[in-house]
Amino acid sequence: MNENNTTKKPRRSPVQNKTTEQAKKNTRQTAPSAVKKSKQPPKEIRRTPVRIIPLGGLNEIGKNMTVFECSNDMFILDCGLAFPDADMPGVDIVIPDFTYVERNADKIRGIVITHGHEDHIGGLAYLLKKVNVPVYATRLTIGLIEGKLKEQGILNQVKLNVVEPRKTVKMGCMAVEFIKVNHSIPDAVGMAIHTPAGVIVHTGDFKVDYSPIDGNIIDLARFGELGSKGVLALMADSTNAEREGCTRSERTVGESFDRLFKKGEGKRIIIATFSSNIHRVQQIINAAVHYGRKVAISGRSMINVINTAMELGYLEVPDGLIIDIDMMSRYENERIVLITTGSQGEPMSALTRMAMNDHRKVNITPMDFIIISATPIPGNEKYVTRVVNELMKSGAEVVYEAMYEVHVSGHACQEELKLMQALTKPKFFIPVHGEYKHLKKHCDLAVQMGMPRENVIIAEIGNVIESDGITMKVVSQVPSGRILVDGLGVGDVGSIVLRDRKHLAQDGLIIIVIGIERAANEVVAGPDIISRGFVYVRESEELFVEAKELLNNTLDNCSYHEMREWNTLKGKLRDALSDYIYQKTKRSPMILPIIMEL
Amino acid sequence: MNENNTTKKPRRSPVQNKTTEQAKKNTRQTAPSAVKKSKQPPKEIRRTPVRIIPLGGLNEIGKNMTVFECSNDMFILDCGLAFPDADMPGVDIVIPDFTYVERNADKIRGIVITHGHEDHIGGLAYLLKKVNVPVYATRLTIGLIEGKLKEQGILNQVKLNVVEPRKTVKMGCMAVEFIKVNHSIPDAVGMAIHTPAGVIVHTGDFKVDYSPIDGNIIDLARFGELGSKGVLALMADSTNAEREGCTRSERTVGESFDRLFKKGEGKRIIIATFSSNIHRVQQIINAAVHYGRKVAISGRSMINVINTAMELGYLEVPDGLIIDIDMMSRYENERIVLITTGSQGEPMSALTRMAMNDHRKVNITPMDFIIISATPIPGNEKYVTRVVNELMKSGAEVVYEAMYEVHVSGHACQEELKLMQALTKPKFFIPVHGEYKHLKKHCDLAVQMGMPRENVIIAEIGNVIESDGITMKVVSQVPSGRILVDGLGVGDVGSIVLRDRKHLAQDGLIIIVIGIERAANEVVAGPDIISRGFVYVRESEELFVEAKELLNNTLDNCSYHEMREWNTLKGKLRDALSDYIYQKTKRSPMILPIIMEL
Repeated sequence: MNENNTTKKPRRSPVQNKTTEQAKKNTRQTAPSAVKKSKQPPKEIRRTPVRIIPLGGLNEIGKNMTVFECSNDMFILDCGLAFPDADMPGVDIVIPDFTYVERNADKIRGIVITHGHEDHIGGLAYLLKKVNVPVYATRLTIGLIEGKLKEQGILNQVKLNVVEPRKTVKMGCMAVEFIKVNHSIPDAVGMAIHTPAGVIVHTGDFKVDYSPIDGNIIDLARFGELGSKGVLALMADSTNAEREGCTRSERTVGESFDRLFKKGEGKRIIIATFSSNIHRVQQIINAAVHYGRKVAISGRSMINVINTAMELGYLEVPDGLIIDIDMMSRYENERIVLITTGSQGEPMSALTRMAMNDHRKVNITPMDFIIISATPIPGNEKYVTRVVNELMKSGAEVVYEAMYEVHVSGHACQEELKLMQALTKPKFFIPVHGEYKHLKKHCDLAVQMGMPRENVIIAEIGNVIESDGITMKVVSQVPSGRILVDGLGVGDVGSIVLRDRKHLAQDGLIIIVIGIERAANEVVAGPDIISRGFVYVRESEELFVEAKELLNNTLDNCSYHEMREWNTLKGKLRDALSDYIYQKTKRSPMILPIIMEL
Repeated sequence: MNENNTTKKPRRSPVQNKTTEQAKKNTRQTAPSAVKKSKQPPKEIRRTPVRIIPLGGLNEIGKNMTVFECSNDMFILDCGLAFPDADMPGVDIVIPDFTYVERNADKIRGIVITHGHEDHIGGLAYLLKKVNVPVYATRLTIGLIEGKLKEQGILNQVKLNVVEPRKTVKMGCMAVEFIKVNHSIPDAVGMAIHTPAGVIVHTGDFKVDYSPIDGNIIDLARFGELGSKGVLALMADSTNAEREGCTRSERTVGESFDRLFKKGEGKRIIIATFSSNIHRVQQIINAAVHYGRKVAISGRSMINVINTAMELGYLEVPDGLIIDIDMMSRYENERIVLITTGSQGEPMSALTRMAMNDHRKVNITPMDFIIISATPIPGNEKYVTRVVNELMKSGAEVVYEAMYEVHVSGHACQEELKLMQALTKPKFFIPVHGEYKHLKKHCDLAVQMGMPRENVIIAEIGNVIESDGITMKVVSQVPSGRILVDGLGVGDVGSIVLRDRKHLAQDGLIIIVIGIERAANEVVAGPDIISRGFVYVRESEELFVEAKELLNNTLDNCSYHEMREWNTLKGKLRDALSDYIYQKTKRSPMILPIIMEL
């Protein structure tokens, strides 16, 4: 596909009047070969252009964020975080680069949020500290956002607005309509963005669940209605674009729980899952009620989310069902279900601490039946495996995905993605939420369904995608990228700091310290050698004695001039020691010469 | 199961005379309920005990190594390496702890090797440098070992012996019989270890392939014959114990290649796979011949293994088929297949360099059709994904496992594991080659087939498992563990060095340097602060100014005594700075106070 494409003679036009729309609909319904023959499309009018600027979520998993811009108005859709890769040691989270938004702060009319997952709301607190604008989301999503803003101490400064599905929020010359979708968290929505140039549909994260736990099926009818009226562009979730078929209903997990509760009879049942998967939690609660067990909860985020969901009425829990974790010992094992965090084997999570015999309140025994109701997110496989092994070593029975259907995805597979294309019938398509391979596969699906390849835009973050209703193309670029958050520092860890951390991790560090009397230009102390993370010093005495000798020789051979140019001197010492160490050990520790002036 | 089990009244006895054997066979064939009734088994004779001592490969994937011991004789089965985990930064490979073997060097009669994979031969060079004893293996395995010993410069010092399947090697009072198995490398064998206490069958890595590329099906008949005569214990590959059904035949990959070569018509085909999978390479060569393409090879290990395999006759390659990679440009894209390493996305591998536009000889374009014929090993998923994304961005078509059947496992799934149990009918069972969850699942399979749970030993490395032919139990423990190899250093990186490396990687380093004149007990230089991997220093000037002030205050407040006790002084400075830095940044860099005496 052409990533910077201009379509000169488009087959379809965006929202106009009803008559034109009807004409187009008819055009669309004729066979592709027939369409090709009609070389003269109805005359189209160029409209005030809309600009779509993805600042995250393309060519990556996480930190989803998109800016929409029209005339003098802008708004933001989602503001998520990403989790650091292995090549970002010490980094806690990654958020989008907000430069473009900050520069245009006066134009931002608001932020709309599709759902309450971290990769859609996790950057919000950082953004709101820079650009304080109203936030619009569904009720549960607002509840979860409140919790996050409270933690950051900015809840009182922010205007949060609950929006119901099928309702619309005005954003200057644009309007954003919320449309119910299914996902692995309740109250998820897609958005129809009504702009002068046409309607842009953004699915958010979605799947199609015909038997969702809360009974609310994705609003397919509204997507279809929009499609009938004319959709300029579709932006759709690509996470599962590689997977054939349809994603199974959340309800099938409940059926598995039913079988597993029978299997775990007589034992304490422990279930780890994502805290935000409130429907999953509801199904655990339902099973607990059915099998006469009390429910205890472990893990800070699980407790927080369950409390929020109960307060807002998203969880139906009979009185007296939930007991404090400290009360567990008063009940027989067979009367207990413990819901916990840690389904990804996160080192500090409750389940991991249980596995490592490090949990203050839960001790794993052969009387435990443990269900890990999740799939390892890529990169977490080894953590999860370690937790499974350790739980099993304590004699517990452990059920995880490889063995049983205890998890379903929250994202649409290929047949659902095709359904969304068929309903919305967009003129242009921008696959979002995925790495390149996902975006590419999603593009291919659309092309297979008859979309001209040049009407698919596989964009990159920072691209400015502009459309006047007739064409759509990447017209420019704005600052974009990743900002690393480490402790309280936002953005103070960058590529140089990371490079140093990785270098230090690889082979450790050798420090050379010398004291030089400036006046006499004479070494009066050292050279001393100190190392960390390099070798067991005690077993490598000879190496260090020889290294010191080498440094003394290097100093002896320095000219008067070299002794005065400390940067040169440092370089000489570093090179000499580096060569020697590599030759002796085939390692390249960081070498840090320090000269003290006396 | 009981891991330290003594079976007082075993149901079956090990190899004795034919009559007893026949009796036992009959016993075995009766229903379990019938067996339970016969409380008086035939009288059994205690024999000279055999000891099995796993030094690697249990509760882990990799570094497979087992010592067998009887009277004054010992031999070693396999000596592999493991690849480092994410928590071993800078480590190149991991090998078993050889302490026990070194202490008993005079008893070691030899080393037998099941096949030529790194996790079975990768530690051999390190072992032979300590204990130089003869090595026995099949022809290809010896060929691959030769290559490794040559690299280490010890080829001439070692006695290598080729052994054919069905042949036996004497190891003092024991004898090791080689038995053909199928695996993802040719010439793999299992072993029947004939000892005074009975026969122990070790499968090595295996699968059952009824249509292997070289025509040699696993020697099921011999395993059955041994089973009929009586097997004391089975040690079997647990890698795929979680997977139901049977592993597909290697030949099915050839069928996929056939379809994919048609699909890639007109384009250059690039296939990445494991260099040691010679049957896979043979199938690529066959397809190349069939479709009239020349074959070029990229990647050092691929070139080495293909050369060895051709020399030894394990690859059939028509004259003139293989061309030098530099000659590729002389042919049309559609006339070329390039076989390369890098199927795991290893950062320095040929395929990764191609993906990153960093390969000197291969430039990826939309005219490339790339097949990754491998599954990511757990932990490598993200590397592989990155390579796929980058290759696709260059416009190439990329086929990988999620999309097509381009790989089969080399390990037996559940039905094959059951077949091995049914053939060998062992009295005791020791699942090997796997993490705890694999060993446990494999144990469960055997128990489901009627093996008493107390006859399964889930052992740990270092366990001494002893059997006199009647019972089998863990009787003691020998030194065991992991030795880390980093560059030329073997064992000089241990837990303290790793802890420092991880600490440095997390939050970097702050060095405090002070010069103190001992006589006057006075600070004459510094405190200076130097940091690496902590923050962008230029953007954090204030932090460092304040930190220096704090250190000065700390020094001012030190008593005369504290100034003389440098360890105390260092501790005070470290604590003060650490508290300040954490309060300001919520980070905990390594803080290293250095005092220079003047």
